[in-house]
Amino acid sequence: MSQQERAIRTRELILEAAGEVFAERGYDGATISDVYSRAGLTKGAFYFHFASKEELAEAILEVQVGSGAYPVVRRTLKLQELVDAGFVFGHRLMYDRMLQGSVGLSLERGAHQLDRRRPFLAWVDHNLAALTEASEQGELYGYADLRATAELLVGAFSGIQMLSHVLADRRDLTERLSVLLAQVLPSVAVPGVLAQLDLSADRGERVLAEAEALAAAQAGGTA
Amino acid sequence: MSQQERAIRTRELILEAAGEVFAERGYDGATISDVYSRAGLTKGAFYFHFASKEELAEAILEVQVGSGAYPVVRRTLKLQELVDAGFVFGHRLMYDRMLQGSVGLSLERGAHQLDRRRPFLAWVDHNLAALTEASEQGELYGYADLRATAELLVGAFSGIQMLSHVLADRRDLTERLSVLLAQVLPSVAVPGVLAQLDLSADRGERVLAEAEALAAAQAGGTA
Repeated sequence: MSQQERAIRTRELILEAAGEVFAERGYDGATISDVYSRAGLTKGAFYFHFASKEELAEAILEVQVGSGAYPVVRRTLKLQELVDAGFVFGHRLMYDRMLQGSVGLSLERGAHQLDRRRPFLAWVDHNLAALTEASEQGELYGYADLRATAELLVGAFSGIQMLSHVLADRRDLTERLSVLLAQVLPSVAVPGVLAQLDLSADRGERVLAEAEALAAAQAGGTA
Repeated sequence: MSQQERAIRTRELILEAAGEVFAERGYDGATISDVYSRAGLTKGAFYFHFASKEELAEAILEVQVGSGAYPVVRRTLKLQELVDAGFVFGHRLMYDRMLQGSVGLSLERGAHQLDRRRPFLAWVDHNLAALTEASEQGELYGYADLRATAELLVGAFSGIQMLSHVLADRRDLTERLSVLLAQVLPSVAVPGVLAQLDLSADRGERVLAEAEALAAAQAGGTA
């Protein structure tokens, strides 16, 4: 393992441990020594990567954003891609402690000065881009308000995952997402598109497996 | 003012101050002395009413529940009553610091052992009862899943109020609620009912004024 690879791996170890600690204790309750102890690292190794708890929390918030959070498998229907991103995120949130910690931080009030808006805004942008493409392909009604829908989906998703967390330790998260999409999308998608959408609760698990198989095949092809 | 009236007024002062303190500092950050100082009360007066911070927080959580949180004005359409309760709650949440503190506590993780489920479950019960009545009156499609819809509305509302809080200090909360209802209700309500519903963002303000006028008239009538 090269020095660079080792640094990347150490950073990942810290982030995984930090996600768990934030998920369990919240931002205010978590300490830096909780994090490096759990990761099995020294204080020095920690501070090589992060200068403060705040910087660490910002990196954790970032794991909700970008292609790592919602790997995309291209579909003919852009609305299915939007749905897939939501289900993959929801599925991962059911077991990925780092993602749970990240979502917890973005929901948490408290003494910290973190910019909690970024994950929400990134998801709004992502949804808006997907809805715009879907609209250009004729998948949506012409009168659909794309921005309002993009923001509604982000807000409503945040709430149903929280309700699922409080009531069922997130076990029914993707079932609740299925209900949300089935009730919201008919207001924007034309019937012929709706009929083709897969909104089943296990969609995320299947798409994630597909994305991983594709990534493995690509890695094999370029090796 | 009788001794009993004074006790009721003191309790209200404590709850109002506690809502503000919890809203600002969260459960872990709030102290009992913050609360009684802000209320202008002595420590002794506080402990006459509440034995602990936990007991105080439970009382604050309770303000989201029951007829105080969503005064009902009877309507021909039961679905409009459901909508009205949501808009009144949303409207009050925009400025009522006690309610903001209460909602904050139910969203907050942290070291406390509060039962955060109760406000959510109370709203689910409320919605389910209203949807059941609406369904019995023929306002909804026969295939509508009433429990799933009741829970979706609670989860989605929690999320949009949180997004509104993070992005706009709750100023656009009732506009977001209007979008939510306009996109979700067509999946359950028959068109003739939908066409009659008032889902405008200022609905809560108007219903609250109406409820207060009715309450004042009743109080006048029984005086």
